[in-house]
This record gives sequence, structure tokens and C-alpha cells, in this order.
Amino acid sequence: MRILITNIAALCQTEAADTTPIRRVAGTAMSSIPTVNDAWLVIDNGIIHSYGSMKSMPEMTADETIDATGRMVLPAWCDSHTHLVFAAPRDGEFVDRIKGVSYEEIARRGGGILNSADKLNAMDEGLLYEQSLQRLHKVMSQGTGAIEIKSGYGLTLEGELKMLRVIRKLREAVNIPVKASFLAAHAYPRAYRDNKEAYVDLIINKMLPVVAAEGLADYMDVFCEQGFFGIPETERLLEAGWKYGMKPKIHANQLHHSGGVQTGVKHNALSVDHLECVGDAEIEALKGSQTMPVLLPGAAFFLGITYQPARRIIDAGLPVCLATDYNPGSCPSGNVPLLLSIACTQLKMTPEEAINAVTINGAAAMELEDKMGTIKHGKLGNIIITEKIPSLAYIPYDYGNMPVHRLIC
Amino acid sequence: MRILITNIAALCQTEAADTTPIRRVAGTAMSSIPTVNDAWLVIDNGIIHSYGSMKSMPEMTADETIDATGRMVLPAWCDSHTHLVFAAPRDGEFVDRIKGVSYEEIARRGGGILNSADKLNAMDEGLLYEQSLQRLHKVMSQGTGAIEIKSGYGLTLEGELKMLRVIRKLREAVNIPVKASFLAAHAYPRAYRDNKEAYVDLIINKMLPVVAAEGLADYMDVFCEQGFFGIPETERLLEAGWKYGMKPKIHANQLHHSGGVQTGVKHNALSVDHLECVGDAEIEALKGSQTMPVLLPGAAFFLGITYQPARRIIDAGLPVCLATDYNPGSCPSGNVPLLLSIACTQLKMTPEEAINAVTINGAAAMELEDKMGTIKHGKLGNIIITEKIPSLAYIPYDYGNMPVHRLIC
Repeated sequence: MRILITNIAALCQTEAADTTPIRRVAGTAMSSIPTVNDAWLVIDNGIIHSYGSMKSMPEMTADETIDATGRMVLPAWCDSHTHLVFAAPRDGEFVDRIKGVSYEEIARRGGGILNSADKLNAMDEGLLYEQSLQRLHKVMSQGTGAIEIKSGYGLTLEGELKMLRVIRKLREAVNIPVKASFLAAHAYPRAYRDNKEAYVDLIINKMLPVVAAEGLADYMDVFCEQGFFGIPETERLLEAGWKYGMKPKIHANQLHHSGGVQTGVKHNALSVDHLECVGDAEIEALKGSQTMPVLLPGAAFFLGITYQPARRIIDAGLPVCLATDYNPGSCPSGNVPLLLSIACTQLKMTPEEAINAVTINGAAAMELEDKMGTIKHGKLGNIIITEKIPSLAYIPYDYGNMPVHRLIC
Repeated sequence: MRILITNIAALCQTEAADTTPIRRVAGTAMSSIPTVNDAWLVIDNGIIHSYGSMKSMPEMTADETIDATGRMVLPAWCDSHTHLVFAAPRDGEFVDRIKGVSYEEIARRGGGILNSADKLNAMDEGLLYEQSLQRLHKVMSQGTGAIEIKSGYGLTLEGELKMLRVIRKLREAVNIPVKASFLAAHAYPRAYRDNKEAYVDLIINKMLPVVAAEGLADYMDVFCEQGFFGIPETERLLEAGWKYGMKPKIHANQLHHSGGVQTGVKHNALSVDHLECVGDAEIEALKGSQTMPVLLPGAAFFLGITYQPARRIIDAGLPVCLATDYNPGSCPSGNVPLLLSIACTQLKMTPEEAINAVTINGAAAMELEDKMGTIKHGKLGNIIITEKIPSLAYIPYDYGNMPVHRLIC
């Protein structure tokens, strides 16, 4: 099956065939999106075969030819942090929070992670899968062409396995890469409230061996935060994950300068995610590391809290990755184009920086940089054809409208 | 033509046939959205004929029957403040602003109102109409069932008339109410930079008589702000508008406590719009007046500036109206559902308050409260059928996704 796309107004985020592959972009390099104007692109059996300028398009045949006059083509979004598998929305909690109801009272009324866990554990696996597949199809229609999904609403062996099996089934159902992170350390179940060490033991001794034996998770995740999993617990969990080859990808520094970023770097985390609270110490720790800082401004928007200091991180020469954090409590949206608008208007990232953050850097935060994130010969042909738009900047500018005409995957 | 909608999960914002009509809602009343669960609704030749509970639905026939199982029905959004007629997007200015470029430099590079005016004056009226109609169809697909559109990118007699004629043509092209506001006092053209009084004279003596004679505008608008049109100029303009029966509907208090709100109230403005800068004096002025405070948080979001104090205004017992401010410079989005999400997450309005603000209060801010804004016998049948959603709160909660399944108008 060969697809030929012609008359592309701008083919964005291209890499030449014969240069050293780009693994991630950082600092000032994030301002650049290499582009071929008036271009053609060939995807052969789902793999990018070749591209070039219309002026020098060779004679060729294709099974499908798409005329992209006036449209742009970009690599599909790589959304490296989501909780897309969940049992029920938390729209009641949303209203309670607007009204200033306390966290404890919200939990009493049926909000919070523990209530999501109750609902997930009570839900049939088939229904959980169907609902999650609908959400996955929705975000794919918004341009997402690779995604990471976390467990963490089970908090029991059975519940966590149920979630991870659903993620595996989603991976088999769609034509895009789906990565799974094991996040039993998302919250302490009620039964362990007074014996937190026993829950960490349960994760390490009972859950992790089963998850690893069944090959259900790519990454080890921990909600590292004061009042949740502290530094000592996080370190035990990450070390245990590494023994099964599961790299860390952790929640860090959402609410406090907790040391989570430094702990992630120390344990060679693939990424440290959230980062509302980042100062000099965190930036110094990230410098020289391969750990990707992943910002989740959609959650900051939805909660009405302070945004992540993206400019400070980029201006320090570091890479920035953006992800949606799609989840029922703090970010019920997996809409990447809107995430780009939030990043540009609130974090003051330029459109180029924001697009690098959800393409090549998003790919890197899921170890997909060899397969996704740029238009390069041999990479997956998961690409976005945009609506007719006048510029790359128009994608975040035209906020609330959908710039994605079609996802090819 | 009779449309019967059955099995509506929740018919929202209803008014009984035999009670005193609601003209606007204020203060604590904004927390209430009267609802009939499991309902039917009949629209007869575009007019709401009757509604009730499915338990007591009479035998009837219809030309079209819609099964709304799992869906909600609401009155269509009334967007009372837009600049939907414009010649070109300003995505370049968007990037410049992110990079911290000064206003003067942005203007030099082709941004700002004066550059929008250059492009509009250069554009063929037919093309301007076609582009604007596309935008209007887009916002209608997002649930907007009545809209106000301003002139103000002409700043010459010919340019202003061109815009107002396009608005009139739009009104004839769609099945929803379209109101026009005359906003020649949007900015001072370059030629009048050193003789501002002469431009106010031009508006009053040359433009206004023609606009009024041709019946092209319903309202008189002024950008009342330090550095734009001050209080004395605003008062002259509003008095001149009143002479032709054009009620004031003005831009006030966006950047400063400029006295614009008080001036609007003094001149019996239908609405005062923007209101980022509102304190005790402005709230006192609004109390006891019929002037509607209209908040435009989409622009505050897009510019990354302080949001309007909606809670303070509502808690003072006043009404609040929300509108999109759809325009190419400070809010390139006419998406009302996303506006509701911004209002709830950033202004801490409850979903009920936000929905009142874009239905009955939006109608009131366009003098359409007799025709729109609630589900009431005899009002226009411009209604929204939602996607299958679990609650009214889900509309702003599920941000970035489109809750509108269908607009009937």
C-alpha cells in the first residue's frame, strides 16, 4: 500500500535521510521546525519512504494519491503522559472545586483518585476497554499518533492488571504505538492509610513481578509528592522497577519542590513529569542528564493553578516536552492542538517550540525517537494533514478549532 | 414544519408559559437552570410550541421526530460581542507578542487594529462576506444561535459601510438573529493621530447619519479606554448615537479603571463589555442600572492577562453575561463551549452561572430576551441538542471537545 501526498503547502519537521538522527531538541534548537515548502511525501506500507520538493518530484504510481493543496503535513503528535483508561468522569468534583470545597469533602462526595479506583475496580473489563477505545479514537482524530497510558486507578493487583490488560488490548486495536506505565504508586488505598510501607511492599513484592512476567508495562511510574510517595518510597520503587528493566517515568514537583526531579535524574528516569515547581536546583539536576522534562499545562489550566516555567527551562538550554495528562480529575482533555494553544498563550512558548515539544520530544519521552517525531525516511508514516491554514503558528493561534483534517496511521 | 424531539434526558433552561417572562438573571439566581428531565419539545415553524414530561406527552404528529435519548437540549448560545467580520488572521502578531515584542513594533510588522483596517479596506466586499459567512457557519456548528457583530476595522466611511453591509448580508443568509454595532470609534486612523477631535467629528457628522439612514446598525459602540477614546469623546459619541435611536454597547475597563463603566451606565448603555478592571465604584454604578456587564475571558486567556472578576460581580447581586469577543487580534475563537470552560476554570463561575451568562443574559445583551435565551412557548426554536453527556457540568468539564451534536434554527 503506497500513499502519495502531493502539493503540500509545507511539509514540517523534516529530517534528511543521511544525517545523524535527531533524538531530541533542546534550548534554542527548539525554535526551529525544518520545512520543505510545496512538497510531496510517499508513505509505503506505513513507513515514510521519501519526500521532496514538487519541483523535482519523480514519476511514480501510488495506491492512493492525496492532493494537499493549501494544507500542511506534520508528524503526528506524541502524547507521552496520559491516564486515558478510567471508569468514569469526575464532573461532580469539578463543580465542587469551583465552589471551593475542601479536598477531603470532595473525596467524601465521590471525587479523587480513591473514588476513581473504586469505580474502576467495580467496572467490567470489557466496558472499560470499550470506553477507553472511544477516547483513544477521539484523540487520534485530534492528531495523536503515539500515546503513553498509565495504570494507577486500580491500586489492587487485580485492578492494576485489569487496566494494563486494557492498555495492551488498545495497543492491538489501533495502528499507533501505545506505551504502558505501571503506576500502582498513584495513591495509598484506604486500607493502607496507616501502613504505607506495606503498600509499597505490596507493589514491589506482589504486583511488580506479575506485571513484569506478563510484559504488561514499559515503564515504572510513581506519584512522587509530599503526602503521597516521598523520596525514600520513590527510590525503593524505582530500584525495584529497574530490576525488571522498567525505566522510571515519574510524576514530580507538581505541588512542591519535593526533590522528585533530582530523584528521577539520579535513577535515570526517562522523564520527570508535571514540574509546576521548578527552580535552579531542578534545572541544574536536569542539565547533563538524559531525563526529559515533561510539562502538563492542560492540568494547570483546568485546576487554575500556576503554570510550569517552560521559558526558564528552555532558556537554560534544556529540552521541553508537552503532554496532555488526559485524566478524569485534573485534565479531562486529550486535545493536543488546544494544549499547544495553552502552551503558547500561558507558558509563552513559541509555536515552533510547542510543536517540537509534542513531536520529537514527545517521541523521546516514550523511546520512540527512532520511529516517530519527525518526517524521516524509515520512520512510521503516522502523519497529520492539516486543514487549509496559512502558517504553522495558526495551529495554536486558532484556538478551540481543530486544525487536523486527517491523521494517517 | 413541525419538529418533535422526544426522550430528552434533560430539557434545560425552561420557563413556564404563564409566568412573568424572565428578562435576565442576576446574583444567586444565576445558580439555577430550571430543567425538565425525560422531556419532549415541539418546535412549530421555527417557534417553540410546547414541551413537557414524557410521562404526559400528548398524541401528536410531526414532520420530523428526533429521538434525543441520552442527550440534553438547551437554548442556543447568544454571543453578544464579536468582531467576526475581518479580512485576515493576525497569527504573525500572536508570535510577536509571545516573544515580547512591543506594541509599536507589532504595529510596524503588520499587527494591530490599524493594519486590520488596511487589509479590510483593501478587500473586495464579496470575499469579505464569503470568509465571514464561513466563520458564522463554524460558530453555529458550535451552538451559537444568535450573534452580535461589530464594525470597526473600516475606520473610513467606505470601510465601515462595507463591514455593516456584510453584516446585513450575513443576517439575510442565516436563520439566526444577527445584531450589528457601529464601532468606527475602535481606533484613531493614522491620518487623525494628531487631530483626534476631527475623527470624532467625522464619525458623528459624516458616518453616523449614513449608517442610521441605511438602518445598518442596531447599536453604538466605542472603545472607551486611556489612549483610545476618553470619557469626553465617548460621551459625545454616545449622545450622537442616541439621537438616531442607537443604544450604546461599549468596550469599557479592559486596561484601566477608566470610568467607562460609569459612563456607560450614565448613558443607559445596553451593555458594558470587557471589565478586566472592575472595583467597588464600577459595581456600585452597575447596581440599580439595566446595563449588562459583559465579560470576555477568551480574550484574557489568549492575551495571558488578568481575568475578569466574575465572582465579585455575581456576589454583588449583579448579572453577568459572557461573550467570545471573536476577533483576529485578541481572541481568534468564537467557540462558546470552550468559553464556558475558561469561565468555570479561570473565573470560578459554576456551570449553571456560565450557561445563564451565554443564554438568557446573552440574549438580554442583544435585546433578544423576548425571543431567545430560554425554552419558552413562543420564543424562537433555536436550540442545541448535545452529544450524549452525563450532566450539564460535563459541557465545561470536557474541555476542548465539542458537546454540541446539532443546532436547530
